Amino acid sequence: MDTTQEIYLDNSATTRVSKEAAEKALYMMTECYGNPSSLHSKGFAAEKEMTAAREIIAERLSAQPGEIYFTSGGTESDNIAILGAAHAKKRAGNKIVTTAIEHPAVLNTMAQLEKEGFEVVYVQPEADGNIPKEKFDAAIDAKTILVSVMAVNNETGVLLPLKDIAGTIKRKKAPALFHADAVQGFCKIPLQPKRLGVDLISVSGHKVHAPKGVGALYVKSGVRILPHSFGGGQEKNLRPGTEGVPQICAFGEAVKHMMTEKEALTHVKAVQAHLIERLKSMPEVVLNSPENALPYIVNLSAGRVRAETMLHFLAERNIFVSSGSACGKAKPSHVLSAMQLPKERVETSLRVSLSAENTAEEMDAFADALKEGLQTLSHA
Amino acid sequence: MDTTQEIYLDNSATTRVSKEAAEKALYMMTECYGNPSSLHSKGFAAEKEMTAAREIIAERLSAQPGEIYFTSGGTESDNIAILGAAHAKKRAGNKIVTTAIEHPAVLNTMAQLEKEGFEVVYVQPEADGNIPKEKFDAAIDAKTILVSVMAVNNETGVLLPLKDIAGTIKRKKAPALFHADAVQGFCKIPLQPKRLGVDLISVSGHKVHAPKGVGALYVKSGVRILPHSFGGGQEKNLRPGTEGVPQICAFGEAVKHMMTEKEALTHVKAVQAHLIERLKSMPEVVLNSPENALPYIVNLSAGRVRAETMLHFLAERNIFVSSGSACGKAKPSHVLSAMQLPKERVETSLRVSLSAENTAEEMDAFADALKEGLQTLSHA
Repeated sequence: MDTTQEIYLDNSATTRVSKEAAEKALYMMTECYGNPSSLHSKGFAAEKEMTAAREIIAERLSAQPGEIYFTSGGTESDNIAILGAAHAKKRAGNKIVTTAIEHPAVLNTMAQLEKEGFEVVYVQPEADGNIPKEKFDAAIDAKTILVSVMAVNNETGVLLPLKDIAGTIKRKKAPALFHADAVQGFCKIPLQPKRLGVDLISVSGHKVHAPKGVGALYVKSGVRILPHSFGGGQEKNLRPGTEGVPQICAFGEAVKHMMTEKEALTHVKAVQAHLIERLKSMPEVVLNSPENALPYIVNLSAGRVRAETMLHFLAERNIFVSSGSACGKAKPSHVLSAMQLPKERVETSLRVSLSAENTAEEMDAFADALKEGLQTLSHA
Repeated sequence: MDTTQEIYLDNSATTRVSKEAAEKALYMMTECYGNPSSLHSKGFAAEKEMTAAREIIAERLSAQPGEIYFTSGGTESDNIAILGAAHAKKRAGNKIVTTAIEHPAVLNTMAQLEKEGFEVVYVQPEADGNIPKEKFDAAIDAKTILVSVMAVNNETGVLLPLKDIAGTIKRKKAPALFHADAVQGFCKIPLQPKRLGVDLISVSGHKVHAPKGVGALYVKSGVRILPHSFGGGQEKNLRPGTEGVPQICAFGEAVKHMMTEKEALTHVKAVQAHLIERLKSMPEVVLNSPENALPYIVNLSAGRVRAETMLHFLAERNIFVSSGSACGKAKPSHVLSAMQLPKERVETSLRVSLSAENTAEEMDAFADALKEGLQTLSHA
């Protein structure tokens, strides 16, 4: 597979593993391959590497290493956080507040909690995709035991008002733990749980140039949630099972080599501005991401060409974007539907998602190909 | 880290990733890095590789690819199988049968089910570590909804009578699903779930020269268990979350390059026989693995030297064994304790665990070092 010519604009689905991260994984697989639980030096060496990775992830979150629990990815982090918090807080109340635009890892875990008898309130977005903080004020009350709100929406790039929500929880004297699914925000916006007032944060490796199959959960020191799986005591019993050491250490290495949030954003903002300018010159294109969205994600609807058709047209030209999120597969987007966009606009929506590696030239190539696709496919 | 001179005899804790498996992981990380759920060709390419891995694992189990679910490891496989089966069968009864010598991933999941109100019967081993089939006859009745028994014990190498147990379940007309934790048996003994009469089988990658952080669960076609986590629908909703593609594909590659069970066993048997012969000439050494144990594991107690002390003595000489299992860390072995071995014998027990890569020369080096250790440390 020749990847030199490809234009990869699906970075919110997954990213290419960085050279440094891949090399670290290789080293851990073939040389430093001890089990971190083993009591001999080969085990200690693996544990030491894992500790270094934990420190790197902690540092990015301005957290303590002891507050970082490695998991197999964002979905597992979300499950541990949400189920664990709801079950731990059961006696304090029955109400949970989340949004209608969360990732399926949150929404389907909430559906499970509803089956168990919890009341879940889904805060709805405005037509532009944003959710103003007042909507959370109305939803959160003194009986709310858990609030779970994503940092950045994975389809539109909309930013959620985490700090305001934390303020509301405090003001309403809710006994709630506050969880943020920050899979699309980690290394893209500054995430300081203590400053934001968040108790639990889910992050994923493969969105930040680490391998698939690794993630982390931040659990604020002193916060107690119930474990969701059971085994040999690893990760302080919250996530037992032999750790995925190569991926964990690669995760650390990937994050270590990521630019600061500010540097990366400056670059991505310029690339995205170039793309927006190109798109604005195309009358068939309408933007679904609001202007205040994080520039890493540009959601657009293009003419009357079904997203999947356009996606294949682009892929044939080695340009990779997505229709909605990768996890939703071919289902119509629940996010755009919650924004009450017309059906046609939902069905023709494409997501361009950037990393700091993308360039303005790639935006031109994409815009040219999109234009060509609209001409070719609209007349088909 | 120079690994050329080391003698690694801790293969039941974890193994070195094979060259072929590591290379496959590297390729999936840096080139074929699409998200298998993505609808473009980059996603399809990743999915195709994952399908190939699924077929390899299925073939080793004489199963269908659709019966294989990838997980993050043995612990997760055990959790999904045990919690999922118990919850699915709740209305048919309340009794669960397992053994006292299971891995913590099974024992601690059982403890959780006890908290939920299930009755769990722990079948005890004989003094030699074996559990005769008659003990299961006595434990399993018409109200038993789940039987979970390991294929091979991870501390002694004892083989459990899976086929007989399946016969008992049938004869007693128990509504039970039958789960086997086969983490220590996979690629070491022939495991054909249909022939054995097993419904659910847990296996792990890192015990068979694949990376840590990947495993699989075999679920017999038609068997329904309840999911244990919730998300984007991957692995037919039984194990959602973006798949750990590099590890999964490396798992396939590792298994593809493993010898047949028979070939490997012939080699390991010869190596183990040489070790046993050496050990029998040492009066301070007593074997804890029975003669009929799988030759991959040799558990022994050595003089009056505490296991951890000996382990460090050996590690300084680049020889790596374990005291009990890696997952139990420094706790005294629950397996040897269940065999009612005297406390001193438990505290001095070492586990030598082999792979097909070990040699008779390495057994000599280990035996020589053990002898030296016994002389040096006994007089300390």
